[in-house]
Amino acid sequence: METVDIVFGRRNFLKKTALFSTGVAGITVLPQVGWAEPREEEEKPNVIGPRKGFTPHIGTMVSMMSWMRGPVLRTARGLTTEQLDYLHDEKSNSIGAMLLHLAATEKYYQLHTFGNMEWGSWDKAVSEKWDTAMNLGKEAREKIKGNNLEYYLNALKEVRETTIAEFKKKDDKWLLAVDEKWPWGPTNNYCKWFHVCEHESNHNGQMKWIKSRIPGLKSGND
Amino acid sequence: METVDIVFGRRNFLKKTALFSTGVAGITVLPQVGWAEPREEEEKPNVIGPRKGFTPHIGTMVSMMSWMRGPVLRTARGLTTEQLDYLHDEKSNSIGAMLLHLAATEKYYQLHTFGNMEWGSWDKAVSEKWDTAMNLGKEAREKIKGNNLEYYLNALKEVRETTIAEFKKKDDKWLLAVDEKWPWGPTNNYCKWFHVCEHESNHNGQMKWIKSRIPGLKSGND
Repeated sequence: METVDIVFGRRNFLKKTALFSTGVAGITVLPQVGWAEPREEEEKPNVIGPRKGFTPHIGTMVSMMSWMRGPVLRTARGLTTEQLDYLHDEKSNSIGAMLLHLAATEKYYQLHTFGNMEWGSWDKAVSEKWDTAMNLGKEAREKIKGNNLEYYLNALKEVRETTIAEFKKKDDKWLLAVDEKWPWGPTNNYCKWFHVCEHESNHNGQMKWIKSRIPGLKSGND
Repeated sequence: METVDIVFGRRNFLKKTALFSTGVAGITVLPQVGWAEPREEEEKPNVIGPRKGFTPHIGTMVSMMSWMRGPVLRTARGLTTEQLDYLHDEKSNSIGAMLLHLAATEKYYQLHTFGNMEWGSWDKAVSEKWDTAMNLGKEAREKIKGNNLEYYLNALKEVRETTIAEFKKKDDKWLLAVDEKWPWGPTNNYCKWFHVCEHESNHNGQMKWIKSRIPGLKSGND
């Protein structure tokens, strides 16, 4: 039941994925706010807020992104190549393609926000590597398959490590500064990165829905 | 294509849902941070950050929740009762039930975090009103149907207004204080409310997937 998932479902998962979470290891809860004791990130992954080594709002965004990765990894855990390739119907995306799509999205937002590149102005090699995953749909159904889970998790992990490293170089002024020209209207880097974060939940909802319908795979009730 | 959805899809939507967004009207971007001009919430809904009338982290959480509501409303916009009741297969939840589920989730987190109630210790009348939507599944398929879109949007709006009113009474110390006994491990109110927020994206992903498969309804590519 969804109730159970929301309230009781994450503990074991978080323990089991501790190794992967070390992509953001070494980050502690920052005592800047005056009432939170400094703690290691992996000890208190469910405490959202400032993190040591980042300005307060950036650290908070990092803590959300780290937390959000948890449910995604829980969905993916243990899936075989065949299950990662499963297409529920003729217009479905596979779970594998959606995992790579999350990495592609984060990669493009890196280039845009850290690299100051106009959206879509990527180097040809970058586009060739990531566009299929970014766009999903027919081409992704044809090309993104045959990979094992480690392939997708490595892509997510490698991209995330760059995000963390770049966030360390930025400050809250950068995060909050307004980009007046963004297509969805004036926005800031905080909103762009919050979107990258909630976008993982959006696709995780779809991945769970599909996972629960893979023939022969016992799964949840989504 | 998902790229288009991420980059270009929200502007018109945000304009069209401005009326609904007045559930959080009167909130302006707080100049506390020193580099953001104060603005009305509805003028800059894509600028995540502190909001006038809230402590900095709470205002930031409010800005995320307001932003996240946008894509949910976009998914729901224009759906008929029959479309809201559509069940894609024998274990699917309807879009209507998921919309009410979002309101139920927010209601229960209100009682828990603002009302200091242990999870599930709700008054009988509260449980009778919200448990079916909270639990989704079989009972929700049987009972949550026949309502028009306004019914669901009103439920979401009314619950959200209480959230906003309660957040105004709280401060960042409250948001960041750690609850050591939470089932998914030590956590804080920031994490609980971030979950309420990303949980909307999780179900929005599912709602979009289902919407795009409602017979006769032209829709996106999820």
